[in-house]
Amino acid sequence: MTARSVNTQNDIPTLDSLVDALRALPGVGPKSAQRMAFHLMQYNRGGAERLGHALLQATATIQHCEHCHTFTEETICATCRSPLRDPAQLCVVETPADQLMIEQSGTYSGLYFVLMGRLSPLDGIGPKEIGLDKLIQRATNGDVEEVILATNFTHEGDATAHYIGQILRARGLRVSRIARGVPAGGELEYTDAGTIAHALLDRREV
Amino acid sequence: MTARSVNTQNDIPTLDSLVDALRALPGVGPKSAQRMAFHLMQYNRGGAERLGHALLQATATIQHCEHCHTFTEETICATCRSPLRDPAQLCVVETPADQLMIEQSGTYSGLYFVLMGRLSPLDGIGPKEIGLDKLIQRATNGDVEEVILATNFTHEGDATAHYIGQILRARGLRVSRIARGVPAGGELEYTDAGTIAHALLDRREV
Ligand SMILES: [Zn+2]
Ligand SMILES: [Zn+2]
Repeated sequence: MTARSVNTQNDIPTLDSLVDALRALPGVGPKSAQRMAFHLMQYNRGGAERLGHALLQATATIQHCEHCHTFTEETICATCRSPLRDPAQLCVVETPADQLMIEQSGTYSGLYFVLMGRLSPLDGIGPKEIGLDKLIQRATNGDVEEVILATNFTHEGDATAHYIGQILRARGLRVSRIARGVPAGGELEYTDAGTIAHALLDRREV
Repeated sequence: MTARSVNTQNDIPTLDSLVDALRALPGVGPKSAQRMAFHLMQYNRGGAERLGHALLQATATIQHCEHCHTFTEETICATCRSPLRDPAQLCVVETPADQLMIEQSGTYSGLYFVLMGRLSPLDGIGPKEIGLDKLIQRATNGDVEEVILATNFTHEGDATAHYIGQILRARGLRVSRIARGVPAGGELEYTDAGTIAHALLDRREV
């Protein structure tokens, strides 16, 4: 395969604008943007129109919950407003997708704080970007008794949990980290040694 | 790793609608649609808004050229309207992207017919879907002396060229196929302009 420059200029202004605009999508380069534009215009104009309206509707109505920072259409999200949630527990997650996974586990009825990212100094994501001040304010509101750190077990997720944990413990809060271990249904034979080591360390009496 | 179902219901109607709508994009499943929606809402609302407008603008204004079927904002595209193009040559390509590649080779000054696909009976794409009647009408308009088949050298592209070639030759037209300077199994969209130039110069009557 010889290298060649990618020309996606079609000399049709609205089509070229669409190709350009599609590059706002994560992981979409010029070539796949053009493929997407052609596909939509040729096979799925109804879908393109629906997507156009959905994008404008979403940018106009979706905001961050004032209490937990997750996406919501209102000032305070449904979870934060619910009288059924236990205000003594605050679970810290990286993204709304992570929050959704914890909800699906069916084992948590406290509240959340969604960092909308994780600390990543090289990408310019510091304490301000993950809303640390708001989190401290929330955690020290008098209702919260325990903060559960449920950031990912990646290098950055761990560093973020460590950083937040230190700050909140210094304010006298009880802070915990979800356990590492063998996944449900997992077999030890197919689990990596590091995970097994953590499962051993995090063992609990039964 | 245990299998788990993908839940992308956020219980935020506009966000769920956006995730659904993003699946109109080719190759985008529920999980990457959600990742795209989160990314846009978190990091690039300006881009999301631009994309929304571009989609609505494109669906409202982009149509097919009445002469050559390519995308255009007008009834007849700029290429078909140009007095500088030689109406004695008609080059048949699968897509606007292929047409663009031939233009970039700088060796062709005739007109085009864009099939907007290729024959693919298993996908329900037959002569009607590639606009065969319009192509025959165009090729037999009295101006065209030679039809150059520049469909891809894939199985379907070859079959399409063979089929169109038979029909047009039966109407007394001179029909040629671009040369296999393009590697066997290769697609024009991914071939460098120099190779395409050779393939055009080496075309032979079929
Ligand atoms: Zn909330
Ligand atoms: Zn045209």
